[in-house]
Amino acid sequence: MEQVSSNKSHFGTQGVYTHQSAETGTAMTFSVFVPDHAESATMPVLWYLSGLTCTHANVTEKGEFRAACAEHGIILIAPDTSPRGDDVPDDEAYDFGKGAGFYVDATRSPWAANFRMRSYIERELPALIAEEFPVDMGRQGITGHSMGGHGALTIALRNPGRFRSVSAFAPIVSPLNCPWGEKALAGYLGADRMAWREYDACALLEDGARLPDLLVDQGGADTFLDEQLKTSLLQEACSKAGQPAMIRMQPGYDHSYYFISTFMAQHIAWHATRLKD
Amino acid sequence: MEQVSSNKSHFGTQGVYTHQSAETGTAMTFSVFVPDHAESATMPVLWYLSGLTCTHANVTEKGEFRAACAEHGIILIAPDTSPRGDDVPDDEAYDFGKGAGFYVDATRSPWAANFRMRSYIERELPALIAEEFPVDMGRQGITGHSMGGHGALTIALRNPGRFRSVSAFAPIVSPLNCPWGEKALAGYLGADRMAWREYDACALLEDGARLPDLLVDQGGADTFLDEQLKTSLLQEACSKAGQPAMIRMQPGYDHSYYFISTFMAQHIAWHATRLKD
Repeated sequence: MEQVSSNKSHFGTQGVYTHQSAETGTAMTFSVFVPDHAESATMPVLWYLSGLTCTHANVTEKGEFRAACAEHGIILIAPDTSPRGDDVPDDEAYDFGKGAGFYVDATRSPWAANFRMRSYIERELPALIAEEFPVDMGRQGITGHSMGGHGALTIALRNPGRFRSVSAFAPIVSPLNCPWGEKALAGYLGADRMAWREYDACALLEDGARLPDLLVDQGGADTFLDEQLKTSLLQEACSKAGQPAMIRMQPGYDHSYYFISTFMAQHIAWHATRLKD
Repeated sequence: MEQVSSNKSHFGTQGVYTHQSAETGTAMTFSVFVPDHAESATMPVLWYLSGLTCTHANVTEKGEFRAACAEHGIILIAPDTSPRGDDVPDDEAYDFGKGAGFYVDATRSPWAANFRMRSYIERELPALIAEEFPVDMGRQGITGHSMGGHGALTIALRNPGRFRSVSAFAPIVSPLNCPWGEKALAGYLGADRMAWREYDACALLEDGARLPDLLVDQGGADTFLDEQLKTSLLQEACSKAGQPAMIRMQPGYDHSYYFISTFMAQHIAWHATRLKD
């Protein structure tokens, strides 16, 4: 692991790091915010998974998470959204290929070799984080935005007991039922829609998976709400499954970091109460 | 004035606007954050002047000011740092020409025609803001970063009584005594250093100008501190002038928005106490 940059900020240190990933076969970049702490202290971890077109940098620059993370003593990790590099296959669309890994392990050529974001986020990166940072991996939370909200929900649903707290900003709640999801899952996994269910939060809930509880904020003026995000499908799935969830519609807010940053501190506080010793 | 964008954020509206400036002879872009408010309400204004290479966008995206502005009911205006456009003369250096207007009215060719940022910020833009936004122009504060900290200090010193509150992040405190300042003032104004004094906070204090009071934060690990910013000159000038000032050195912090965003809420709270009815 190499340090790309380190900046003192909000009574902590905002670092950016790169490492060679065995899963993706590429160099991967991520950011970590570590609050100032006593020398031998460990702190809980909050994973933030980003949306389409984003890298680690978007939330790191615009997410407004540091003040709250420092206040609550939480380390925030922001990974990239796909493998990168000239040798990685790509698609000219913004919603497939680079910047659009969808947190799946691809099985179709030419994507299968590098697009292993599920294994990268679920296994490889946590092992590195556990080794390199003062984290208490017994206290993890996860959140994310849009495609990253989908990632947070599905990773938490597939790994019961790993995350004490789960939230999302404007998540894609059912890739089986929206154009972004259908394109990505067909492209990475092929036509068999049964294989998609482990990458669909609503399907996972229907199939019996559960979260500890759930906080979701969704902008009421989000132009992707009706066609892609379909928050109501998650409300129905939670309701049918008896899954506790606080799903809030925020009137006037769109899909941007202007929305995310507004509710970031509330999400971190919500995670913090669940990540206490 | 045309609206470029409008995003709901932090219980207010973050807008970006453009208008044709008579002073610069160009289109000028600026951002305005307006907290949610009662229909007929007016609010105090905080001006934020940006540093070298910046546009309105840097602080708008990375400044983390909206939560505090909404809490205190303050409108924040972020102008650009120079005229822009293919017809505007430029210099290939980052510290002169476009992105580096230094808040002066240039007198030398070819800069004099467009580089009129002093008059633009002191007169033209306030008149537009007063007309277009729900502002109480009797309650104004001003702040800025680096070159914009220089702008905030000098504009406040030259306009006694206009600003109830003045602060700065890592300001250039004496262009007469640093390479950035000497290059810019010689380039825009010519070799007569007496003409530079109205653009030098320390010289203005020495010549009798005063501020209501002053808050300055300066990063202790700022790589520009010793050669360009020279905070100690401002401390000495305030001390000699009997100018009340709280000038704080913040260990470990650099010159970036990671520093600015850390202390932004404290600055806004400080302005808010001075901008109350």
